[in-house]
Amino acid sequence: RIQPERLENQLQKLGSFGRNEQGGIDRTTFTPSELAAREWLKSELRRAGLHVRIDPAANIWGRRDGGDHSLPVIAFGSHIDTVPNGGMYDGALGVLIALEVMRTLIDNDAAIRHPLELVSFSAEEPNPFGLSTLGSRAAAGKLSRSDLEGVTDNEGRLLTEALAAAGGDPDKFEKARLDPAWLSAFLEVHIEQGKRLLERNIAVGIVTSITGIYREVVTVHGEANHAGTTRMEDRCDALMAASELMLAFEEICRNHPSGEVVGTVGCISNFPNAANIIPAKVVFILEARGNSELEIQKVMEAWSLRAEVIGVKRKIRIERRLMLNQAPVPMEQTVIGVCRQKVDELGYDSLFLGSMAGHDAAHMSALTRTGMLFVPSLEGKSHCLEERSRMDDIEKAANVLLHVILELDCT
Amino acid sequence: RIQPERLENQLQKLGSFGRNEQGGIDRTTFTPSELAAREWLKSELRRAGLHVRIDPAANIWGRRDGGDHSLPVIAFGSHIDTVPNGGMYDGALGVLIALEVMRTLIDNDAAIRHPLELVSFSAEEPNPFGLSTLGSRAAAGKLSRSDLEGVTDNEGRLLTEALAAAGGDPDKFEKARLDPAWLSAFLEVHIEQGKRLLERNIAVGIVTSITGIYREVVTVHGEANHAGTTRMEDRCDALMAASELMLAFEEICRNHPSGEVVGTVGCISNFPNAANIIPAKVVFILEARGNSELEIQKVMEAWSLRAEVIGVKRKIRIERRLMLNQAPVPMEQTVIGVCRQKVDELGYDSLFLGSMAGHDAAHMSALTRTGMLFVPSLEGKSHCLEERSRMDDIEKAANVLLHVILELDCT
Ligand SMILES: NC(=O)NCCC(=O)O
Ligand SMILES: NC(=O)NCCC(=O)O
Repeated sequence: RIQPERLENQLQKLGSFGRNEQGGIDRTTFTPSELAAREWLKSELRRAGLHVRIDPAANIWGRRDGGDHSLPVIAFGSHIDTVPNGGMYDGALGVLIALEVMRTLIDNDAAIRHPLELVSFSAEEPNPFGLSTLGSRAAAGKLSRSDLEGVTDNEGRLLTEALAAAGGDPDKFEKARLDPAWLSAFLEVHIEQGKRLLERNIAVGIVTSITGIYREVVTVHGEANHAGTTRMEDRCDALMAASELMLAFEEICRNHPSGEVVGTVGCISNFPNAANIIPAKVVFILEARGNSELEIQKVMEAWSLRAEVIGVKRKIRIERRLMLNQAPVPMEQTVIGVCRQKVDELGYDSLFLGSMAGHDAAHMSALTRTGMLFVPSLEGKSHCLEERSRMDDIEKAANVLLHVILELDCT
Repeated sequence: RIQPERLENQLQKLGSFGRNEQGGIDRTTFTPSELAAREWLKSELRRAGLHVRIDPAANIWGRRDGGDHSLPVIAFGSHIDTVPNGGMYDGALGVLIALEVMRTLIDNDAAIRHPLELVSFSAEEPNPFGLSTLGSRAAAGKLSRSDLEGVTDNEGRLLTEALAAAGGDPDKFEKARLDPAWLSAFLEVHIEQGKRLLERNIAVGIVTSITGIYREVVTVHGEANHAGTTRMEDRCDALMAASELMLAFEEICRNHPSGEVVGTVGCISNFPNAANIIPAKVVFILEARGNSELEIQKVMEAWSLRAEVIGVKRKIRIERRLMLNQAPVPMEQTVIGVCRQKVDELGYDSLFLGSMAGHDAAHMSALTRTGMLFVPSLEGKSHCLEERSRMDDIEKAANVLLHVILELDCT
């Protein structure tokens, strides 16, 4: 069994890096507070007796050798960067549970055959460089040196420089790629960031797939005109048309029979955006997510039909550009099975569920058998300072991870 | 009768100031192109034999003395500034018709008893200093020196400096105020900027009132949340709520029985405006206009009821702040009567109509008997490079103005 007090203490320590005046955490990737958190983490890994290594993508690895050097690595971890004014659990919890599991194994001198690697991936969250899950994508070989070339944040800081400052090596970036043969399995513990576990009063979520994310940039072309002298019936108002398009999308997602697709318009711009000019153009990003590519497709098809009707009725032109089409990524069956078995043996309640959020585990699953465990989020809140999870649930997830690793080591 | 060729020639000349590559006019107030147009206008006024004077608000006045020095002034004109990428008729037409009328009277050595003053008002259009109808408001005594204090454009240029560069005098700004006793009447010719005259094939519009304009800043307070893990039924999406609020407003204006109120949301901002965050806050400006304060009120009351229901249904808070509440300004009855009489005598068709747009005439009416004539706009387009009016209609409006002035001079 893991030691909950030690884990809680570490959570509070890491949570002090980037803590702002309102109580939120500002630990955006490669900022000074995130670099300080990296230094702290590296020293904790060394204190725990792990061998620390930074790869060219600045991912932090902490190794415990196993009894059999010929066996591949069982890896587990998450990330320590946050969104602006984020919470202290998103990512950090997965890394510190991994560390607590390592400490428990070391304290107990557990005889493990496989080498174990704790990992803290770089830049998981959306960040000013526009490249989220940077570290896990590099590990999966999905990013090359040229993808970093010329990339800057809003202040013109080069990603390559930021990466080097964090201990990465942009010139050898592709060396961050892992050989699938080097890995036996990957596991990630993360907060759910939603309410499904909480409402059912279930302690452990077993993730069946990482969400698919589909995004389009929609541009509505209307006609600018005088807000006074243009009669209502003579208008081609891009903003009113956009409003109707967005509400139709919301309605389709709400009424979608499977109930497992969510849709959001999070980002919108209006032109020319003056109080007395009828809007000529509106650009918005429409996002649909879910565990089934087919269900996402059905939602988009239903919306396409509605959009066409709205376009004709309002005499506006709708231009659509695909921005992102990430298929859902299923978690591996044997790992899911072991997770379920250990939860049951420990006597906890569990729920199979789709992630609905993106995670590093999606990229790791291209390399190796991958599984994910969710911890309930209080009020379902995340990416904000109200982000919380109960120590009781955290302890359970850590114990499940410990026993899943012990089980995977035997098979 | 006025000389249409001379007038057309002057329109083309003034239309060359600020002409951009697309063919639109960039002659925003106090910009170099507008200052150049001012110089051209002053020299034309002098060439026509008028006595030129610049008042502290940088309004340009061109005087022709009358036979009886004890009589008050009959003033007429409009403005020469434009919106960005605007057209060559909005404002300019009214100033150049005024000049053509002056030239016709001078050529014919007309014996006029009243002094006549042509006026070109400063900064009528919405401008980077955020003060439209600056010149006519100053003339009406509605602006004081302190209203200019510290006002800058986006680049930090002081309004007081811009005003001085145009020949105004910020330190004596309040001296721009006119004594009502100094004036006998004010007349403005302007393009309609809508389609009402064109669709009825009527050459001359006689304005009965300048539109009332009511504006509110509406803030919708929702709750930011994760776009993936937050179920549709758990959202308080500020943007979806705003969409519903805007569409309800459009519907109310469209179906409003009097048909004489228009409503627009021209300006909107969304926060935090990221593709994967459910919008927490939306701010938009809602505008209602019309010739009747009561009808505007009815529309706002109907919308308030709808807004309340939407707020409750969507669990969002709606904050409303009054931004502008300009009552409609009726034009003066005897001036309207003289306009109608002269249109009839000249054998033209005419229509009484509300302005729907704001004009300098609204402020002048606080000082003196005021009237306004509209020239049909082709396709109803304005504030864009497609802004056009037929010379045939322009000639008619100029002749009406000439005869209205002759008539007002006798009474
Ligand atoms: N886990 C998480 O919040 N990822 C951020 C990317 C997303 O799901 O929008
Ligand atoms: N005439 C005109 O376009 N005025 C601008 C102010 C407004 O009506 O919105």
